[in-house]
Amino acid sequence: MSLKVVSSKAAASIDQELMGPVGFTLQQLMELAGLSAAEAVLKQYPAKTPKNQVLVISGPGNNGGDGLVCARHLKLFGYEPVVYYPKRSGREEFYGQLVKQLEFFEVPVLGKDDGNWVQYLKHDNTVCVIDAMFGFSFHPPMRAPFDEILSELKQSEKKVPIVAVDVPSGWDVDQGPTDSSAIQPDTLVSLTVPKPCAQFLNPEANHYVGGRFIPKHFAQKYGFESFGYKSGDQILKL
Amino acid sequence: MSLKVVSSKAAASIDQELMGPVGFTLQQLMELAGLSAAEAVLKQYPAKTPKNQVLVISGPGNNGGDGLVCARHLKLFGYEPVVYYPKRSGREEFYGQLVKQLEFFEVPVLGKDDGNWVQYLKHDNTVCVIDAMFGFSFHPPMRAPFDEILSELKQSEKKVPIVAVDVPSGWDVDQGPTDSSAIQPDTLVSLTVPKPCAQFLNPEANHYVGGRFIPKHFAQKYGFESFGYKSGDQILKL
Repeated sequence: MSLKVVSSKAAASIDQELMGPVGFTLQQLMELAGLSAAEAVLKQYPAKTPKNQVLVISGPGNNGGDGLVCARHLKLFGYEPVVYYPKRSGREEFYGQLVKQLEFFEVPVLGKDDGNWVQYLKHDNTVCVIDAMFGFSFHPPMRAPFDEILSELKQSEKKVPIVAVDVPSGWDVDQGPTDSSAIQPDTLVSLTVPKPCAQFLNPEANHYVGGRFIPKHFAQKYGFESFGYKSGDQILKL
Repeated sequence: MSLKVVSSKAAASIDQELMGPVGFTLQQLMELAGLSAAEAVLKQYPAKTPKNQVLVISGPGNNGGDGLVCARHLKLFGYEPVVYYPKRSGREEFYGQLVKQLEFFEVPVLGKDDGNWVQYLKHDNTVCVIDAMFGFSFHPPMRAPFDEILSELKQSEKKVPIVAVDVPSGWDVDQGPTDSSAIQPDTLVSLTVPKPCAQFLNPEANHYVGGRFIPKHFAQKYGFESFGYKSGDQILKL
């Protein structure tokens, strides 16, 4: 069965249409996207005390915001998330609010000078690391500090599974991994619809689609059939 | 086992705190509240083709907004919702966006001059009616057209079960139903924590708590223990 995908260009149009004429707000879509990612973690890596820590690495844009929301839901689901958020955009007040919400939930949010984030990759009770650095609008080159973060994730990926939100960071959205230094996620959570790079996942990797917020006719307009989510699930394993 | 409740006054403080110092936005909380209500409907009244119609009646404030969000998720869950929204506040641009989102999902939204809303109460394929008219900040008297709407719901409540969002409309939030003309919901979806009126539900009625967005220490501060939601559920049957 071939995978339904849309190009990075179509993904950008979908986003613009959802937040333009359709009337969705970023806050709504991000809440549902982050919830999806948390549900995928819950399904794929159930928390078993004391092994219930999740490291969430958030980038400066919307993919990073999805990670911040995901971390909050993970806490509600019984995990102990820690967020590494080295480069805050500052442009969008809402991201500051997402951080405040995490503080309310007593979720640590480490900044760029908290060099000790790597320790969370090495803890025995870390169940997975969430790559919420860059999404479908990423263009190379990968700048600091994310190049170094990816190199750390690569080194530990056999021990600590990587859950990529929408697109594995560093991959070309349409072409997939660019060389052998690219991370190989154990799980990908595609939002709304997979991007072409999802076809280059390891065959043993887990692939979910989340972000359940479009009707059938909208999917068809973009050339794919909508996904058969079950009951109230916000994710579907492909 | 006694029910955990907080007074209408405490509920107002909780809301102010969540949307003030905690940093939540109305859009986030409403998305999760509406999703909870939709999940409760899914659990309590599964859609069976062709019996999959739900009438959602939205009031002018936040309770009405929860109903608008709920209708959208119900459509995604396979129902055919119809919204009756007779009095739009107009003050809050976001409510207009929620209506646009429903139009995107091809969910009919009837205005006050669409007198034919009652037909949906009478259809054989209507599984339930959602009372999203007024929440914990309601004060009497009940004004037109909501007085008449409640009288219609009362007449049909044995045939078409009522799902009340947070507080059954017309009830005193702290004292419960004020007289025998009060509606008797078949299901109540309390948001965050039940209000005292929930103690006056019919013993056979279904009671869910939803709005899973507070940590344990916050609940304790308001004098209740947080609820034991299962896995990724957004609702818990009490």
